[in-house]
Amino acid sequence: MNRLSLNQKTTNSWAVEQAIDGCVRAGLESIGLWREPVHEAGVAKTAALIADAGLRVSSLCRGGFITVPEGEARRRAMDDNRRAIDEAAELGTRYLVMVVGGLPAAGGASTPVLPGQRAAAGSASPAATTGGGPDAPVERDRDLPAARQRVADGIAELVPYAMERGIQLALEPMHPIYCADRGVLSTLGQALDIAEQHPAEAVGVVVDTFHVWWDPDIERQIARAAGRISSFQVCDWITPLPADSLLARGMMGDGHIDFRYFRQLVEKAGYDGDIEVEIFNADIWAADPDDVVAWMKRRYAEYVAGPES
Amino acid sequence: MNRLSLNQKTTNSWAVEQAIDGCVRAGLESIGLWREPVHEAGVAKTAALIADAGLRVSSLCRGGFITVPEGEARRRAMDDNRRAIDEAAELGTRYLVMVVGGLPAAGGASTPVLPGQRAAAGSASPAATTGGGPDAPVERDRDLPAARQRVADGIAELVPYAMERGIQLALEPMHPIYCADRGVLSTLGQALDIAEQHPAEAVGVVVDTFHVWWDPDIERQIARAAGRISSFQVCDWITPLPADSLLARGMMGDGHIDFRYFRQLVEKAGYDGDIEVEIFNADIWAADPDDVVAWMKRRYAEYVAGPES
Repeated sequence: MNRLSLNQKTTNSWAVEQAIDGCVRAGLESIGLWREPVHEAGVAKTAALIADAGLRVSSLCRGGFITVPEGEARRRAMDDNRRAIDEAAELGTRYLVMVVGGLPAAGGASTPVLPGQRAAAGSASPAATTGGGPDAPVERDRDLPAARQRVADGIAELVPYAMERGIQLALEPMHPIYCADRGVLSTLGQALDIAEQHPAEAVGVVVDTFHVWWDPDIERQIARAAGRISSFQVCDWITPLPADSLLARGMMGDGHIDFRYFRQLVEKAGYDGDIEVEIFNADIWAADPDDVVAWMKRRYAEYVAGPES
Repeated sequence: MNRLSLNQKTTNSWAVEQAIDGCVRAGLESIGLWREPVHEAGVAKTAALIADAGLRVSSLCRGGFITVPEGEARRRAMDDNRRAIDEAAELGTRYLVMVVGGLPAAGGASTPVLPGQRAAAGSASPAATTGGGPDAPVERDRDLPAARQRVADGIAELVPYAMERGIQLALEPMHPIYCADRGVLSTLGQALDIAEQHPAEAVGVVVDTFHVWWDPDIERQIARAAGRISSFQVCDWITPLPADSLLARGMMGDGHIDFRYFRQLVEKAGYDGDIEVEIFNADIWAADPDDVVAWMKRRYAEYVAGPES
């Protein structure tokens, strides 16, 4: 239980101060933070609250969104990533989670706004469209290999800055359901292909069960990730998939993922860090956050931390 | 245009006779059939109608659903697959598309019923559940590697029967969004790992852009599939994803897929067969089927068959 970390998105209605207090009340030692609520409280104030509470920050979400072609929007995105690196350092975590972005036309140049998250000043809401009917096909950037190359280029540009500040860029492969509009890194193997171009202290990977559970090559890739696993995150794949695919994650035990199997794989690869629970789900967000934390602890004990499967 | 095939699911409201007539009216030479509507018309009658119309049958959907453990349900599934092989032979196609099935507890032992499809006699509707809330986690089979092994075993069992009848089992890797409840074959590479255990005339693979477009390894895997590509199918990945993930497919041009890129990859691998358009989408199903066919032809010309990208 001392490795269990509450990613604050799981208790989305809580502000940072409330999430920190909630962790302390629940006896948790670690928390995963998101930049937007941290900005609302202030980075320095959040860092002070974390220190007072004696918590670890298991990761900061999120940098990334670097698939746009060279130009002003890309320069803005790179500047924002450097700010995110600074914030991670100030908050006392080593790990900045990178959600790399989708195809440019699908997500727009700006950081997409998640459900339940207020738009940051200056950022546009997602520009995704459903297409235009018989006579209005949508012209857009469909060059997926090029978008992926721009991710590799962007990471290479950020590495020196991250290394100077002791931050590991944690590349998060995302479920292929999000390839078009959120993350063109679709497999752990693909994330490692980029990470391995850099020192391990500079670029790591996130193993999030929701994103990678289906991958037939996952055993081999988790073994390959030894020494580069920045974060291990858990939440479940539930069926039928909820209507809003961004809120499709379930509490451990409600879905189809064998969490002990994945915990054993990352441990065999040498990972002994925090295990973050990050759940985007409208029903869970509508529940009382203290109840959600208690529920999460029970399910973690039963499905993740329990005896060998 | 002579390679364009209408998969009859694209015009879901048409019975088999109507779909055959619609193809002839539109000047198409090929049609992809589904077993359930063929059963409604009768297999022998459908075969006669196809012959009278002078159409090719580009494929028959679908065999599969062989992830259940050994026992009565599995024997029933294997018998049903042998019937499907017989039907493919009678209908004059070489290709039986195999949708292998999800985790047993997610889809149940029976063939799931698709939206817009009447339940076949004796088959149950999907048993998927959303999970039970705080104190009722769902006990189910979460052993994905074992389910995948049962697919390989089932294919091996069916191969001699298929070879005797001149049918190629066409393994269809499905988008990982369907891994839990519909198809545990998630990548073309994984499908080829199974196919390559058998003669090419017995086991091939389906390259469906909707299912494989996100795969970072797809160029290499399509090249590897040379000589085993049973079917090339096209439809688009649209965002935001429609609420019902089974009806999430879009008309070519409405989404994010670069179809010419994939057409060139399969052609480089030696594929010169039919190109099937198979779209599950409530809006398209609600439109006039003749309009849908005309629309499909225009979009095929513009996005799939057109000049080099």
